[in-house]
Amino acid sequence: MLIVGERINTSRKLINEGVANRDAAYIQADVKFQIDSGADLIDVNAGSRRNSEVEDLVWLIEVIQKALPQARLCIDSPNPDSLKAVLNQVEHSPMLNSTTLERSRFESMAPIIQMRDCDIVALCIDDRGIPKSAQQALENAGRLVSELERLGMKRERIYLDPVIQTVSANTNAALMVLETIERIRRELEGVNVICGLSNISFGLPRRPLLNRAFLTLAMKAGLNAAIVDPLDKKLMGMLKAAAVLLGQDPWCQAYTTAFREGKLESIS
Amino acid sequence: MLIVGERINTSRKLINEGVANRDAAYIQADVKFQIDSGADLIDVNAGSRRNSEVEDLVWLIEVIQKALPQARLCIDSPNPDSLKAVLNQVEHSPMLNSTTLERSRFESMAPIIQMRDCDIVALCIDDRGIPKSAQQALENAGRLVSELERLGMKRERIYLDPVIQTVSANTNAALMVLETIERIRRELEGVNVICGLSNISFGLPRRPLLNRAFLTLAMKAGLNAAIVDPLDKKLMGMLKAAAVLLGQDPWCQAYTTAFREGKLESIS
Repeated sequence: MLIVGERINTSRKLINEGVANRDAAYIQADVKFQIDSGADLIDVNAGSRRNSEVEDLVWLIEVIQKALPQARLCIDSPNPDSLKAVLNQVEHSPMLNSTTLERSRFESMAPIIQMRDCDIVALCIDDRGIPKSAQQALENAGRLVSELERLGMKRERIYLDPVIQTVSANTNAALMVLETIERIRRELEGVNVICGLSNISFGLPRRPLLNRAFLTLAMKAGLNAAIVDPLDKKLMGMLKAAAVLLGQDPWCQAYTTAFREGKLESIS
Repeated sequence: MLIVGERINTSRKLINEGVANRDAAYIQADVKFQIDSGADLIDVNAGSRRNSEVEDLVWLIEVIQKALPQARLCIDSPNPDSLKAVLNQVEHSPMLNSTTLERSRFESMAPIIQMRDCDIVALCIDDRGIPKSAQQALENAGRLVSELERLGMKRERIYLDPVIQTVSANTNAALMVLETIERIRRELEGVNVICGLSNISFGLPRRPLLNRAFLTLAMKAGLNAAIVDPLDKKLMGMLKAAAVLLGQDPWCQAYTTAFREGKLESIS
């Protein structure tokens, strides 16, 4: 399970202040916590600061790489020009978040993806919008993989995002995504599936509870990467428990190690 | 999801004391809490008190039915004679816990099952012991259903227990049970699947965390009854969250009602 730490996002109040004040130590400390808590990659998103997104990304990448040269970064922007502007500043092979199948978005992203070796997050959205069925999501997934392979990308570097909608608006939203994940892993062999979790619970109380249950189900369906807050001990504990149950943690080694290190939730 | 409340079991210290002291009020209060927390049936087990099991069961059934005449009971004993001795004392149609496919156990249980309309919990164990594969569990399941149907039982009154072993001894134990549950529901249409949860985590730290993750996965596989502690707010919250995600709670009504009634865990 690949963990992409989601905290360095200027839509979070404290991160936004850290960026606005150029508080390198604060950003570096947050990233260090994420890595210590199990993040494999650090998502970096300054999209909420439209007028300064590129210079903010440049600064963020610089201060993170300075303090934590081992950190792998996921550069996150809906704006292809922003991704392009910072791409070569990233030391290790980056993950780019994201493209879709929407014609103009994909055409803007295509040359950027080819600039250097990278992982790509690809949302199963086309010009008709968010898929209305698992079948439609899977068709989008298949087309995305073909298009990306035509650009020379290897399947193991493609991370398809099935696009989660909230169960509060559609009772079958979670089942649809779970079916999509299962079928992507079965029918598009070698491709990875990634998602953020929290959309699933939008509009409902006790969202972390639903997010944890959904993560467990999604891992069974074949989710092998997730964009999460690695400092969320309950979520990460559930993830480790699910890994044990799904045969992904031989001899429960990661689980018992996390327990000994105090990284599983402490109460019951 | 049918909830069988597991608390009235003399292997629990306080229940054992309540039974030993004939403390009717204590037992009645516990059962009331279970029903208020969502138990559909109340499991009654005095198996740890071998020398007085039948008289203890008689007393328990009497005091529970006196205070809570609406309560449905699940009479739980490995001893067919004990089940037989109390069967007609149960007011509402009882659940009997349990039979297996072991020849002597099944032969002892057969006439008891025929004494009156009842639900039966049937463990997928035969004289070779606990199944070593999903295939073997499914074969036992199929034979159990045939044998029980031959006794005149309807499928909707049969609750197959796939028999959970701990993941600490076998990395694939949970996956095997999940496959068994899925195949029972698909291949033996109309039959229910029940299980206790806690064996899955035997020998590991933070067992409730593993039990909650397993419950979520088992519900997706098709588990439609569980023997649990309905006062375990975290487990019951996870169960309600899973029901939302699995399309079993239209408009999230049960979930939001539980939230309003303070029945979902309170922290994050």
